[in-house]
Amino acid sequence: MSGDPASAAARPIAILGGTGPAGTGLALRWARAGEAIIIGSRDAQRARDVAARIRGRVGFEAIVSGMENSAACAAADILMLTVPFETQAAVLKQLKPAMTEGSILIDATVPLAAGIGGRASRTLGVWQGSAAQQAAELVPKGVSVVAAFHNVSAELLNGDAPLDCDVIVCSDDPDAAQLTRELAAKIPGVRAIDGGKLENARTVEQITALLIGLNIRHKGHAGIRITGLPPQAYR
Amino acid sequence: MSGDPASAAARPIAILGGTGPAGTGLALRWARAGEAIIIGSRDAQRARDVAARIRGRVGFEAIVSGMENSAACAAADILMLTVPFETQAAVLKQLKPAMTEGSILIDATVPLAAGIGGRASRTLGVWQGSAAQQAAELVPKGVSVVAAFHNVSAELLNGDAPLDCDVIVCSDDPDAAQLTRELAAKIPGVRAIDGGKLENARTVEQITALLIGLNIRHKGHAGIRITGLPPQAYR
Repeated sequence: MSGDPASAAARPIAILGGTGPAGTGLALRWARAGEAIIIGSRDAQRARDVAARIRGRVGFEAIVSGMENSAACAAADILMLTVPFETQAAVLKQLKPAMTEGSILIDATVPLAAGIGGRASRTLGVWQGSAAQQAAELVPKGVSVVAAFHNVSAELLNGDAPLDCDVIVCSDDPDAAQLTRELAAKIPGVRAIDGGKLENARTVEQITALLIGLNIRHKGHAGIRITGLPPQAYR
Repeated sequence: MSGDPASAAARPIAILGGTGPAGTGLALRWARAGEAIIIGSRDAQRARDVAARIRGRVGFEAIVSGMENSAACAAADILMLTVPFETQAAVLKQLKPAMTEGSILIDATVPLAAGIGGRASRTLGVWQGSAAQQAAELVPKGVSVVAAFHNVSAELLNGDAPLDCDVIVCSDDPDAAQLTRELAAKIPGVRAIDGGKLENARTVEQITALLIGLNIRHKGHAGIRITGLPPQAYR
């Protein structure tokens, strides 16, 4: 994939809020796939520690560094946001000045009711319709928002086995969506599916709450596969 | 399964609004599994015609009759509701006097925006949270509501091949949910999953709109599989 717009040398991926389980899992899988990763965190030292841990797991070829969130944001134009819903808006407002035009923000935020003391199997209503649509309101002009990676088990991402799930990618920017699908497909076992417009993130976000409910009830690490589509729908 | 509470002789299944694609597909699959089916329709003649067509496809052993909806409702205590959202409330109000205490109403209604002239890939907000919860408000006391079968392709149900999808079953009545999971598992290729409380139908209903969007975009008959749960979660 060298020369490809998603290739490591050309475009590092900043994982903002990257020290949580979803962020470290994505960092691990993408670093293994040869992507350059910048872990972002409020605490730069914590980001560096997590980056070192990931380098330790991936091996000498890993390109993983750690920075404070704003610095990570300024150093990359592929931004992966993995923060709890209750901090999403504040983080985006803080990072807005550091985002450069032409950047892509991949949002995996799920508005779980757990964020305000409710159940993780329930969601909150978001005025814009979804956390991803809220993100789209908060980024500067010229930054494209893509919703993806909501339904991937963070625990399984942090493991070594291939995953058994699909990533539904929603965006109003087809190029940004395609790049995100290419990144998703770099995770072993993941198939990426074009889920259409960003507004469809409403349902994709809700699915996570359903999966959390299934995990609690059945003690598993649930994911989803979409069946019944022609082969070219998966990539 | 003879002697089982869901077995044919003991408890016929009335499929209310059973002449539409979802209703005929379920009737076909359950008739093949040996269940006794009563197709319900506003138009008794239409119900009888559809029943005859299903008997023709299943063969001489099929136990399938057709009746006007209220008569079908009175003749069964397992009620499967397959009507468009925009008629759900009116149908339930009409059928309420015909429902007997101890009955189970399995609701597959999806509040698609298409019902009011919008897109089939969008849903309407339902005050109660979901179409299934609306149904629960409209049935008489002593009738249990189960939400299930939203995500099964009606077109594939009407075919002969095994399906490739899971049915997530949500209800506040564990016995009714179990009976519904047993009925789901009688459809070749279907696994039934306990999705917990009826309120979780909110997400399961939304998933249908997402799948419709995928079908439009990718020209398929999308379904879902839940991965990552222990074997005992599927039945």
